[in-house]
Amino acid sequence: MEVELKELLNDLQSLKKSISDPSDLALIDKMHLHVENIATLEKSGTTCRSKVKDMSAEVVDSNPYSRLMALQRMGIVDNYERIREFSVAIVGIGGVGSVAAEMLTRCGIGRLLLYDYDKVELANMNRLFFRPEQVGMTKTDAAVQTLSEINPDVVLESYTLNITTVEGFDTFMSSLTNKSFRTTKSGSGVDLVLSCVDNYEARMVVNQACNELNQTWMESGVSEDAVSGHIQLLIPGETACFACVPPLVVASGIDERTLKREGVCAASLPTTMGVVAGLLVQNTLKYLLKFGQVSRYLGYNALKDYFPTMEMKPNSQCSNTACLERQKEYILAKPTRDAAAKAKAADSEALSVAENPVHADNEWNISVVDDDEVDGADVRNSGVLPEGIVHELPVADEYPKQPITEAVGPADDLEELRRQLEALNAD
Amino acid sequence: MEVELKELLNDLQSLKKSISDPSDLALIDKMHLHVENIATLEKSGTTCRSKVKDMSAEVVDSNPYSRLMALQRMGIVDNYERIREFSVAIVGIGGVGSVAAEMLTRCGIGRLLLYDYDKVELANMNRLFFRPEQVGMTKTDAAVQTLSEINPDVVLESYTLNITTVEGFDTFMSSLTNKSFRTTKSGSGVDLVLSCVDNYEARMVVNQACNELNQTWMESGVSEDAVSGHIQLLIPGETACFACVPPLVVASGIDERTLKREGVCAASLPTTMGVVAGLLVQNTLKYLLKFGQVSRYLGYNALKDYFPTMEMKPNSQCSNTACLERQKEYILAKPTRDAAAKAKAADSEALSVAENPVHADNEWNISVVDDDEVDGADVRNSGVLPEGIVHELPVADEYPKQPITEAVGPADDLEELRRQLEALNAD
Repeated sequence: MEVELKELLNDLQSLKKSISDPSDLALIDKMHLHVENIATLEKSGTTCRSKVKDMSAEVVDSNPYSRLMALQRMGIVDNYERIREFSVAIVGIGGVGSVAAEMLTRCGIGRLLLYDYDKVELANMNRLFFRPEQVGMTKTDAAVQTLSEINPDVVLESYTLNITTVEGFDTFMSSLTNKSFRTTKSGSGVDLVLSCVDNYEARMVVNQACNELNQTWMESGVSEDAVSGHIQLLIPGETACFACVPPLVVASGIDERTLKREGVCAASLPTTMGVVAGLLVQNTLKYLLKFGQVSRYLGYNALKDYFPTMEMKPNSQCSNTACLERQKEYILAKPTRDAAAKAKAADSEALSVAENPVHADNEWNISVVDDDEVDGADVRNSGVLPEGIVHELPVADEYPKQPITEAVGPADDLEELRRQLEALNAD
Repeated sequence: MEVELKELLNDLQSLKKSISDPSDLALIDKMHLHVENIATLEKSGTTCRSKVKDMSAEVVDSNPYSRLMALQRMGIVDNYERIREFSVAIVGIGGVGSVAAEMLTRCGIGRLLLYDYDKVELANMNRLFFRPEQVGMTKTDAAVQTLSEINPDVVLESYTLNITTVEGFDTFMSSLTNKSFRTTKSGSGVDLVLSCVDNYEARMVVNQACNELNQTWMESGVSEDAVSGHIQLLIPGETACFACVPPLVVASGIDERTLKREGVCAASLPTTMGVVAGLLVQNTLKYLLKFGQVSRYLGYNALKDYFPTMEMKPNSQCSNTACLERQKEYILAKPTRDAAAKAKAADSEALSVAENPVHADNEWNISVVDDDEVDGADVRNSGVLPEGIVHELPVADEYPKQPITEAVGPADDLEELRRQLEALNAD
């Protein structure tokens, strides 16, 4: 609009020179004033902040990072500014993905890759982020518009495509492996993939890509009755992949593939989606900046404010061949991992260990899980689930390409766990 | 801007009539085109949706309420459209309050009352909601601007004032008792007050107002290290008021009054504040629309993804005289309450009971708490707190006008509770 306004002013100047009638000249002066008013109105609506070179911890109202850099002074994070080095891919820019993208943008993440093929509709207005004036735009375009205004420091890449198509999958894979921003420790171009999609097929595609690339990712979901959700961390070879165990969702139990059928409309709430996005990005920050404990599975039951947690080990009978390869690698790397863990423990008195990863594909600061350790809310590879969690899909699942094998394992201590959780979850 | 553009077009028309030089006329035609381009650009940036008379459940992309009305079809909510009858007051439009306001606006709440005296700063950009171009505006004005664009159906009232001043408190009280929108069952003009303030004094003022008005409210807070928060339901006479027990916050333990001192900058995260706002508004929806269980106290420890819950009974030694009056009324109303509960139980086979409140000041659908019932995660009036929760303020508190008396009561079953919570919260 700036260009149009400048041209209009130039035209008025030329016109003023060529005419002499006083009433016409008065009219031109009046028009000049209108154009200036429009320019002022326009300017007041689009004042964005300029880019910031370094994140400052200075406590002034004009510093957009002061409250984040304060995390260092509070002793929560060692080096907050490292966030600018990280790339996060968000697949699905809907009720969860868009809010996750906004949170990471406001936190000053280095680079965001956004994937979606849908358009903004008025029917999306019951969730945060998109605005009515963006109706009709692609979700990726609308997201880039809003996010670049909020924080011009973040590098935004948007991909308007469907990852479940052959072509879409190829672009998805090549974008994840593009190392122009920074090569990550895992060898891909991104540090973490966040799955914020709303259907089973897309989740299986993210799973396939991440298993192939040995890429750590987090999965998120909200039930179609809008009152439960979950997040899950998936580390190829180390944790269960999405094909290892039947996908789980808290409380609901309805086949997710019935979603988005003609005439069927899933319920959704800005609250549930906001909470799930918040938990997802909080765990992303903990994972990237190495503080706190990253949850492996965290459910949210909104009706009871109940938050079940558990862990799932990989299934040695998994139908996904890339998963089996990662499992083999993980087992082979055990001696290296043990040695590194021992070395780290020995060095723990020294202050210089924080920057060294335990092993190549375990970038986060949680020590290696010992198989003998069983904590109260830990379910491993058993068919029995904690109270409040049900299988999302029927056990006898017939998904064509990825037949799901029921996970096996002993149900040790589950009666005790069940009793404890029931006590907490009592009516 | 629309007016300016229209005038500009009129001026161009008049000018065109009065001049004859062909190059001048060409210039005018060119200017006409520029004005039209500006109008198009301007229009694309401000297309807001028109008001909606009735909430429709129709499953079309253009229906902003389809995903909310689906909560009825899913069996979660009996009558979603009732949300349009409710008024909610939000005190403090910061990192939690602004997001809570947006969530309620997107849910189609009837009326929102917004209170804040602060201005938007770039230093607020690490939390959701406010945008850089709003820097310098009052938070109330910026919120009304954004919220009215998102959902024109919501009645917005903003109060740019400090409730801790004498004048501010008077306006606060009179705005809460204004019954022009709808008289609520409790007799005030609002159904719920949400406290989203960031300091102790303001919380004590909300507590005073709500005790005086017999107004149910919810309190929220985030610790200054940004990694824990809580929400709490306060029903005058029935639950502990904010002066009954020393205020609690999860995990932190630092005196909250040290906040906002000169040179001291609290950390904050969009994730923690988004989660707390989500939990707060989710419980607001459960309370207003009568579904699920409304949490009385729910903590959020972000480092461990731990969510402690508990209940707090009123303190008969409370220093707040209005609280003591409400406690007396609550005890006196016990026979009525018991009779109503008995009648409700007798009627429970019939379907028509849902609309009758158990008693006048208990609008929510949780049955009356029996003093003998003790569930696992329930702490009542004991000095001992569940694992993960610490006193926010020093026990020997010297707040000038509201000296806090330590709550009294037996520590029954606390050892067992402690053991259970420790098991769940184990490293």
